[in-house]
Amino acid sequence: MLPFEHIIIIDKESKVAVYKQIAFSITNAIQRGTLKAGTHLPGSRELAKSLGVHRKTVMAAYDELSAQDWIIITPRKHISVAERIPLLKPRKWSSEPSALPYQHDFHIGFRIIDNGVQKTNTTPNPEIIIDDGCPDVRLSPIDALLRTYRSYTSFKYAIKDANTGTEQGTAKLREELAHYLSETRGLNISASNLLITHGAQMGIFIASRLLLEPGSNIIVGKPNYPSAGRAFEETGAQLIEVRTDEHGINVDDIEAVCKKKKVTAVYVIPHHHYPTTVTLSAERRLKLLELSIRFSFAIIEDDYDYDYHYTTSPYLPLASCKHDGSVIYIGSFSKMLDPSLRIGFMVAPENFITQCVALRKIIDVGGDGYMQNALAALIKNGELKRHVKKAKKCYHQRRDFLDTLLREKLGKYISYTLPSGGMAIWVKLNPEFSVTQLMSHPKLKVTRIDIEHNAFRFGFASMNEKELELAVAFLHAMLD
Amino acid sequence: MLPFEHIIIIDKESKVAVYKQIAFSITNAIQRGTLKAGTHLPGSRELAKSLGVHRKTVMAAYDELSAQDWIIITPRKHISVAERIPLLKPRKWSSEPSALPYQHDFHIGFRIIDNGVQKTNTTPNPEIIIDDGCPDVRLSPIDALLRTYRSYTSFKYAIKDANTGTEQGTAKLREELAHYLSETRGLNISASNLLITHGAQMGIFIASRLLLEPGSNIIVGKPNYPSAGRAFEETGAQLIEVRTDEHGINVDDIEAVCKKKKVTAVYVIPHHHYPTTVTLSAERRLKLLELSIRFSFAIIEDDYDYDYHYTTSPYLPLASCKHDGSVIYIGSFSKMLDPSLRIGFMVAPENFITQCVALRKIIDVGGDGYMQNALAALIKNGELKRHVKKAKKCYHQRRDFLDTLLREKLGKYISYTLPSGGMAIWVKLNPEFSVTQLMSHPKLKVTRIDIEHNAFRFGFASMNEKELELAVAFLHAMLD
Repeated sequence: MLPFEHIIIIDKESKVAVYKQIAFSITNAIQRGTLKAGTHLPGSRELAKSLGVHRKTVMAAYDELSAQDWIIITPRKHISVAERIPLLKPRKWSSEPSALPYQHDFHIGFRIIDNGVQKTNTTPNPEIIIDDGCPDVRLSPIDALLRTYRSYTSFKYAIKDANTGTEQGTAKLREELAHYLSETRGLNISASNLLITHGAQMGIFIASRLLLEPGSNIIVGKPNYPSAGRAFEETGAQLIEVRTDEHGINVDDIEAVCKKKKVTAVYVIPHHHYPTTVTLSAERRLKLLELSIRFSFAIIEDDYDYDYHYTTSPYLPLASCKHDGSVIYIGSFSKMLDPSLRIGFMVAPENFITQCVALRKIIDVGGDGYMQNALAALIKNGELKRHVKKAKKCYHQRRDFLDTLLREKLGKYISYTLPSGGMAIWVKLNPEFSVTQLMSHPKLKVTRIDIEHNAFRFGFASMNEKELELAVAFLHAMLD
Repeated sequence: MLPFEHIIIIDKESKVAVYKQIAFSITNAIQRGTLKAGTHLPGSRELAKSLGVHRKTVMAAYDELSAQDWIIITPRKHISVAERIPLLKPRKWSSEPSALPYQHDFHIGFRIIDNGVQKTNTTPNPEIIIDDGCPDVRLSPIDALLRTYRSYTSFKYAIKDANTGTEQGTAKLREELAHYLSETRGLNISASNLLITHGAQMGIFIASRLLLEPGSNIIVGKPNYPSAGRAFEETGAQLIEVRTDEHGINVDDIEAVCKKKKVTAVYVIPHHHYPTTVTLSAERRLKLLELSIRFSFAIIEDDYDYDYHYTTSPYLPLASCKHDGSVIYIGSFSKMLDPSLRIGFMVAPENFITQCVALRKIIDVGGDGYMQNALAALIKNGELKRHVKKAKKCYHQRRDFLDTLLREKLGKYISYTLPSGGMAIWVKLNPEFSVTQLMSHPKLKVTRIDIEHNAFRFGFASMNEKELELAVAFLHAMLD
């Protein structure tokens, strides 16, 4: 009899279940050759005794090993190591050696989308990360979300159908979200006006593929949110940039363009413009809606951080105002909860949503139904609203704290307008300094730098006061 | 003093934390008017005593209420209901009433992708669901995956940078997957040859947008996987169908087409073809690779269920054989673990992957970094391999069990060839029966029905023996 108590090593402190540890030890011994093919293994009762574990634990280990073909259990007779050890060696169908194919280039012609200009800032181990306006995940009820998620996946058979309808988003999430949006943003919608996307960007991508084609014109602000701009360009459409000032995108410019050419759509971030953080004024909002009717263009309204408005109540979205059905409203939970939670949404008339769903199915079939339902539960039980309320208060304080820090420590080097909301301050460096400095420091990573405007976004929401102090002190040392 | 022990109702059995129950009760009382603005609330010590809870619980409730502006805490003085109750009433910027905008149609011209033909089978509450080949989520280590996921999200600040690089997939997952694929499928790749996608479909979508343009030709089998076909059509390319028989797609047909026109790509599902489940023979595989070099076309190899092959070891992918870098290999974890886990991958030469990443950023920015890293851990600790091994054994048994059932109970009505692997049997109804019958029964939902071939896919992997018996008995009753 082999000394199984030496072959099988159990660490009761380990997080790995004991039966798995037993199974691992046995497969290791088989692979090392300590246990040969055909070797009889002790009965579960006997092995349990020598290892000092419960017999059921040993039985679980044997079941696992048998399921994996490592051992053969002959009921009422014996347990033995399988004659054919299960090695993962797929049969070769060709005797030719596998030439390292992926060391080659791809030899068929294909479109070049990135010719090297889009390289992101890839500082390997930055000490200071200044993001472009991300939420503080330490405040988010991610744990509650995942708890619910787990509870759904444990229903097992009942969820066989869980994936049905995820191309539009689960009915549960769309219903809860329709309530939520009408309550918080005055949107008069039903679940059929909603498409749940894989983040706000997918909403922009889908809308632009349906609206634009080579030769179409779309108006955007200057500067603009780069990822949206690239999605528009990808369709072959022409981007027409108009000015953006402290009241948002210039609607007179939009009118002037519309008088000269057919404009298919206008992309706006009324609340708060990316990257400059300005809010579109009430007057311009009304005018934009009028122009949309007069010149028959669609408005793509990107409202990624509606919830975070500090000085006044937020303006209601354009989509909640009187319009002729030409506003496509795009939002996201990434800014409310966690950037890694890739759930966004689009609100639009039903006939448009129907086509979006058809396109979405082709792009990636659909989203994660469990996660969507877990989010629906978070909305239903009020957790999301409570979280947003708390986060808003906290981010408001952080904005004000950063404002004080910037004035006191960096006043000589920079200028900015304090945004009325959002999660970032648009900081312009004085002409004697160059924002490219911020790109080269090995310990610093700044997500959004705009060389043309010598400016960067200082995301304050994700940092607490101590972290904000550190980041500002770091910048001060660099600029001084 | 108000009777707080009656205003505040605590259910210690409830899953809602006690401090939250206290906070809810108080906000409810404020909203109902029981607690008026300015009303003083008892100190935490006093309230804790009258409710029979710990003082810290009451303090937590008060903190929550204060953060949400329901109450004002004046340190060392008193706690009172806020004068301005926080109502979620955004300021209206226009006095015009909000006209139900989304009841309208969308009035701007847009592309019609689905003209009504793609309607899926939407039986509301089917008793029997016959899917087209889904895994049995009851076997999947989803719980282990979510446990790891949760542990990542609880690192909090350390994960500020968690979203970096998710446009290609996290480095961790790509590294683990490169090992896994070389071990299990003979793919000689590194992490830079991998793009992590939101399911296999996204890989197909991205590859086709880079390769195809209006007027390009792509060859597909007939019948074909419909979602892939639609992704190709979306680019404006021409689909050329060639025959598929018991050895897979007909390579002589492919050769004949290539002699007549320029073919950009060939889409194959060598292992096992969807919907017919046939495996592409070794001889044809070699010929296909030769043709690819001779006629310079790309091969899009969709290998969605590689792991499930029962009678022999699986053929190695085309991508693992000698080729000139023209094979784009697409796989998914949806079939290994859970259809709701939307993680797939593409393997291709680095210069192609770079362009895929640029396009992917425009489509949806990136995936869920935590989930990707949780999956990487599942691969690293061997859990995924163990699971696949167990599942394979189980699905093999289910295939054989369904084979017996179909022969015994439905032999008179149907014909089929037992597939050597995969998760479904392609069942053809005899000509005297019509597959449309299966579409109309209110208690039955069949995911993939092919009217042209009078056939459907019978997914066996997701059902245990009892469920398979029920489904077959149901079909028997319908056809008899």
